[in-house]
Amino acid sequence: MLARELAEPYPVVDLDTDAFAAARLLADQRLPGLIVNGDNGRPWTILPGSQVLRFVVPGYVQDDPALARVYDERHADQLFRPLATRSVRELLPRKPPELATLKGEDTAIEVAALMARLRSPLVAVLEGGEFLGAITVSRLLSMLLPEAP
Amino acid sequence: MLARELAEPYPVVDLDTDAFAAARLLADQRLPGLIVNGDNGRPWTILPGSQVLRFVVPGYVQDDPALARVYDERHADQLFRPLATRSVRELLPRKPPELATLKGEDTAIEVAALMARLRSPLVAVLEGGEFLGAITVSRLLSMLLPEAP
Repeated sequence: MLARELAEPYPVVDLDTDAFAAARLLADQRLPGLIVNGDNGRPWTILPGSQVLRFVVPGYVQDDPALARVYDERHADQLFRPLATRSVRELLPRKPPELATLKGEDTAIEVAALMARLRSPLVAVLEGGEFLGAITVSRLLSMLLPEAP
Repeated sequence: MLARELAEPYPVVDLDTDAFAAARLLADQRLPGLIVNGDNGRPWTILPGSQVLRFVVPGYVQDDPALARVYDERHADQLFRPLATRSVRELLPRKPPELATLKGEDTAIEVAALMARLRSPLVAVLEGGEFLGAITVSRLLSMLLPEAP
């Protein structure tokens, strides 16, 4: 089985995508992260949902659980307001982790080896530089694992 | 909103759970990882799907993409055979990462602060030491994020 047969549709955003729209996509599609295209228009990194939280939750609240406890929940709506005027580029950590990528012609074992080596739950599949889709570790297991040992 | 209202069912396995059954659970439920109870019967760590791959894919194949390419796909079935005689305990990395846990009475902001600080996509919610469920970052965003900014 080849990577191109394993690849499934996966949401991709650009560095200039509105940060609020990206957060809504994470929420609506119940995803742990989004694939982000680099400036060259090709998949480049992942925006994890936890990074959105790092951006909006004040640092002093992150560092002190006691302050988090007294943080007024009525402010929760306002917590996300800054996202409306920011881009995905501004949400990303300073050194975004490199996204694991493979070619459509790579084999399932190559996918497994890459995920194992990088401890990655997700790889992007490119063909001729174009994004074909993503492979999650559970998708790979569901295709490779026999029904019974 | 409190953690106990945010918590959703999530598969939990024990250290003595059959490793093959754990891998099938990851595949069938399309999950990136499972929650693993420690020897005290309480949620303790995560078994990521990529760790299952690290266990079964030979090290020389993980290290050399060229060897992965020539690895015979007909052996893929046999790749997972060792899981049948192993337990989850044997699959885990030597120093398993600590699972982020919260109490049922903790607030949504405390959940957000913990996920942000630990860069964690998942937290377990305990009440009186019992596992209530898990909260994913996308679940939290879907409950906290307003429809429009």
